[in-house]
Order: sequence, then structure tokens, then C-alpha cells
Amino acid sequence: MTILTRPILEINTGNIIKNYQQFQKLSGDAVAAAVVKDNAYGIGAETVSEALYNQAGCRHFFVGHGIEGAKIRSKAPDAKIYILEGMGADSIELFKAHHLTPVINSLKQYQFWKQNKIEGINPVIHIETGLNRQGFREADLQQLSAQDLTEFSFVMSHLACADVKEHFMNLRQLNEFKRLKAKYFPKTKASLVASDGVFLGEEYLFDMVRLGAGLYGINTAPYRQNQSLPVITLKAPVLQIEDVNEGDYIGYSITYQANSPKKIAIIACGYGDGLPRTLSNVGKVYFETPTERFEARILGRVSMEVIVCDVTDAQGLNIGDYAHIIDDKYTLDDIGRDAGTIGYEILSNVGKNPRADRRYK
Amino acid sequence: MTILTRPILEINTGNIIKNYQQFQKLSGDAVAAAVVKDNAYGIGAETVSEALYNQAGCRHFFVGHGIEGAKIRSKAPDAKIYILEGMGADSIELFKAHHLTPVINSLKQYQFWKQNKIEGINPVIHIETGLNRQGFREADLQQLSAQDLTEFSFVMSHLACADVKEHFMNLRQLNEFKRLKAKYFPKTKASLVASDGVFLGEEYLFDMVRLGAGLYGINTAPYRQNQSLPVITLKAPVLQIEDVNEGDYIGYSITYQANSPKKIAIIACGYGDGLPRTLSNVGKVYFETPTERFEARILGRVSMEVIVCDVTDAQGLNIGDYAHIIDDKYTLDDIGRDAGTIGYEILSNVGKNPRADRRYK
Repeated sequence: MTILTRPILEINTGNIIKNYQQFQKLSGDAVAAAVVKDNAYGIGAETVSEALYNQAGCRHFFVGHGIEGAKIRSKAPDAKIYILEGMGADSIELFKAHHLTPVINSLKQYQFWKQNKIEGINPVIHIETGLNRQGFREADLQQLSAQDLTEFSFVMSHLACADVKEHFMNLRQLNEFKRLKAKYFPKTKASLVASDGVFLGEEYLFDMVRLGAGLYGINTAPYRQNQSLPVITLKAPVLQIEDVNEGDYIGYSITYQANSPKKIAIIACGYGDGLPRTLSNVGKVYFETPTERFEARILGRVSMEVIVCDVTDAQGLNIGDYAHIIDDKYTLDDIGRDAGTIGYEILSNVGKNPRADRRYK
Repeated sequence: MTILTRPILEINTGNIIKNYQQFQKLSGDAVAAAVVKDNAYGIGAETVSEALYNQAGCRHFFVGHGIEGAKIRSKAPDAKIYILEGMGADSIELFKAHHLTPVINSLKQYQFWKQNKIEGINPVIHIETGLNRQGFREADLQQLSAQDLTEFSFVMSHLACADVKEHFMNLRQLNEFKRLKAKYFPKTKASLVASDGVFLGEEYLFDMVRLGAGLYGINTAPYRQNQSLPVITLKAPVLQIEDVNEGDYIGYSITYQANSPKKIAIIACGYGDGLPRTLSNVGKVYFETPTERFEARILGRVSMEVIVCDVTDAQGLNIGDYAHIIDDKYTLDDIGRDAGTIGYEILSNVGKNPRADRRYK
């Protein structure tokens, strides 16, 4: 028996590389760009960028803000680094210093760019096709001169429902994208899809795909078998194993009462580690012995650094054993579903865990 | 009009100091310890510890794991730093190097401590009184010798329902704590409550209170007016203001459809910044002009880095204006309630935002 107290977050960078290569294969001749925004969905933008740059030849990276681009520049020295939120007064110096490429989402952003052009940078233009998030609306495209329209390296848009293969929005957005491209950007390279859109068919691929969630093991196209290998494993040690009596309460606000005697395991992981509090009384963790894998339900509220799980029927469980919170059998997609959200949000929070022992392999 | 792209997280360390002093006053002669686990609930354990040590004379700090204690040692050189999860094989070297004090939660942890004692350190013993989380059960206390029982600097426990003044569990746990203390630790100093328990009455205070959420502006005793000043403000700039037509969809999976023409603001904040995805279609943000404050509802899904809000009725709103996501009028408690969780979890995630411009004042 070993006394242990710290969660472990294992990150399989080898599988990130493999996922990139798999999506690259699926994407035909389109350039495969890596989306490493939000610190690579929490996994570590510098580590991920360096691995993809050195081991997979990736030369196109997307992040949200200039500050994120600045952080990865040294890991991807001659790559294109695109900034999805565009260039603003709060990032312009970073663009200059780190040779970042803005995605220009609106006429106002374009005007700002015109006043602050950086030599050698050809921005991307983002056009709106149905998601109603960032992007130029057509009325604003009409304000650009013929000369303006030629200076972009890519025209891009983004799909709303690419995770559902037969969704009517996919074709509607594709047609709108093609119409706007033909009218305003006939000779400009184009990019429409993220990981989920890669499965929609060849005509969605254009010249570049933008791979985010698919790199990190999330099944972005849940109507088919996951094409991504799992990337993270979150484990946390059992701090104590104790008995509770019939009638005993567990956790804050006594939301659980034992209706019979139980054996509980107290585990060093909570919402501070990224385990959502919505899993109170409904989530589960897994234990593995040499011969079996068994489930232990979360009893009571998820605390900041601790959960309590039902191990009444567990055989051979010891203090110091690791509970699997997320692994290759209970995936980010599974825990996202159980928590009433998506694997993306789980990963983003788990990846920011400040006390996990983070092990890259 | 300014083009801006980055969220701003303002942290009022002055108010953390004031909150500490206010709780210190409420706690009478009890020592006021600061709980800075989970990177001070995301706010920054080093900054918070340094401020409380230098400006408020705090000399007792609690964190979850040894790694967290090691990080703050240089900011609180001669303070006691207590480690709630205890000492384990994965932290013993940190305990030695940084002179950390374990909270010992179980007989097994005590046995580990006995084999690995650190000179000059008197551990805290945590006893279970009804929460059924960490802590010695009475059967295990009986395994300790009379000599063993005298070596602890404090005996502590933790309340399950201290946020509800009249909850039967409070008195039940108090009585159990007093019984166990009288029986096993008659001469040992004691600590039972966190911020919320400070309001339960003098006999709950004992020799030390452990202040966490109350320091960071959360109303830990929601049945009464908040005694904590707000500590964080999260703001994010408007990237675009656009029109949508009747029938248009907004966001991923088209969960929102406009039933009339609308004006929308696209704002640079999403679940990657700690804004929970459960606020999709139900959350709201606020704008302030010199003359008014108005609410804008979130339309469609919260994305990783962006939300879309309804500003149809807004007057004088401009690109580059900041939406208030959390402030002193729409507090952590408010957003926690609207998101179906508690301010603690919101703060923990918001505080880990990797791209916010973090401004301490």
C-alpha cells in the first residue's frame, strides 16, 4: 500500500501526432492546420505545437488571440500562425513581434488592418455563412474594393452542425460559401471545415482543414466510429477507504444518504481538477485490477478537490490505487455526455488542472 | 471605436485583504487561516499568499497538495502551510524541502507519517464528524496511543451544511466534534469551520477558522447579506455587432432561431475562459454606458472562445465596448446560480483562463 495524494494527467503526444496524420490522410490534398487555441484545449499549446511542427510537419496553426500566437512562435518558427479573433489594439504589438496572421472577421477589423498592415502578412478573411458568429456579412464584403479582395491568403467560414452528417445546415452553408467565394474570392484559397467537417465529403475540404478537437481524441463525428485515438488519461489516487452506516450522509448539503451500509473510497479529484460539479451523485469513475475493470458511482457532491465513490462491491481495492476519471474506455465524450455537456468543455477544464502531475508521453 | 480581442480578468487583491480582515474580526480570538488551494480558487495562490502575508499578517495557509505548498513557500517564509490531502509518497520530498505541515486524515496516513516524520513539524489531525469525506473515523482514533494523540498541533473537522444557518447537521457535527475532542484531544487546539461556519456562533470558532471562499468574494452564508467584497471582474470586448434576420439561426447545433430581426453582439469569451456552457441560451452579460446598465441575453451555444448576445434594444453600444461577464453587480454567486452550480466552481474555472489579461490591483 502506498500513500498518494496527487492526480496524474497523462498526455499522449504520440497519439496527437497519429490523429493529425489520420486526419491529414482523410483530408486529401487540403493542408491540415492544427487548432491549438485555449492552450491546445488545455493540453499545452507549446508542447502540442512543437510536436506537430517537428514530428508531423505541420506548418499552419490557429489560436484565438495574439497572446496565444506569441506563446507558440518559438515552437513553430517558420509556420503560419493564424489568430481567429483578429488583430486589435490589445494585440497589434504581438502580431508585429511574432509575425502573426490575423483572421479578419469584419469590416471594422479590416479597416484596422489597413491602418496597421504588417509587411509580408496576408490575412485570412472569415465570411459568415449561417453560424452567425464571427465573419463578414455580405453587405460588408461589398465595401471592399477589387484590390482589397485579392490580398487575402485564405477565405474561411465555419459550419454550425458538421457533427451531424445529414444536417440540412451543412449543404446550406456549403452552397453559401461557394456562392460568396465565387462572387468575391474566385482565386483565393479556401477553408471551410474543422475536424467534424472532414467527414462530410470531398467538396467540403477545399484547400485547408482546421483540426482541433479531432487531434485531442474527441469524436467530432459521433454518428460514426471515432477516428481519433484517445490523448488524455486523468487518474487520481484513493486517499481513504471507509465504511458508512445506513442513514449516513455524504458530502456537502447532504445530497446523498446511504440506504444500506456502504464502503466508500475518497478520491483526490474534484471540480478544481476539472471534474464538473454536475457529476454530483451521477458521475462515475473506474478502477482496474489485473483481472477486472469496475465502475464506482460518485456519491454526494463533487467537492473542489475530492469525490466520494461507492466501492461497496469492490474486491481488492487499496488505498493509493488510482481511480480512472477519464481514460481510453471512459472517454472525454462519455464524461461530457454524463455531465450534460461536451468533451471539449471537459478537456478545456481538465487541461488547466494546476496540481495534476502532468506527464507527456 | 477601438478594435479589441482579449478578455480582461481584474483581481482586486485589496478586497481580498479587506475580506480577510473582516472575517478575522468576525472570528474573535480564533486564528484566521487562509485557504489558497486550487491556485487560490484560480485567482493566483502566490499573489494572494504574498498579499495576505505582507499586508494582513496572515501566518497560516491551507492548500490541497504538497506541490501547492511548495509554490507558496517563498511568499510566506515563516508561515505554517498545511496540506489538506496529507503527505504521501508523491509529496514527501516537497514536505521536507518546504517545511510543510500535513493534515493527517487516516490511520494509514498517520502510519506513513510515523515512518517519515519531519523534525519540527506537528501535523494537524482531521477527524470525521458527519461529512463522510476525509478524516479519521473513531475506530481508527482508538488505534492511536496516548502519546500519539498529543503530538498534533490542531484537531480539525469540516461542516457539511454550514451555508444554511439552522441546518440540523451543524449542531450535530459540532456536538460530535466536541465529544471526540474531549475524549481524544482534550488539550489540543481545534478548528472546525470555514468561511461559512464563522456565522454559526461563537462556539463554532475554536482556535482557528479556515477562510477560503469568503476571501474571494463568494457569499458563503447566502441567508444573510454578503460580508465579502467582490474580488474579480471578468470583462470581454465586443468583436462585432451584426443584424440577424427573422428565421436565422445562431451558434452550434442551431439551438437558437430568431423569431424576429435582432441585433447581436459577438463577444470574445467562452467556455475556454471559464464561462460555463450550461449558460447556452440562458445566461446573460451586462453593458454599462455612462448613464445606464443593461442586460444582454446569450443566444445559442456558448462556444470555446465566443458568445453571441442579444443587443437588439441597446443604445449606443460599440465594437470594442466591454461586456461584463462577472462584476460587483452580477456576482460569482449570481452566475453560479444561473449556470446550475456555485460560485466556487465558476471562480475555479474563470481563474484558470489562459488568455485573459490578468490585472491585479
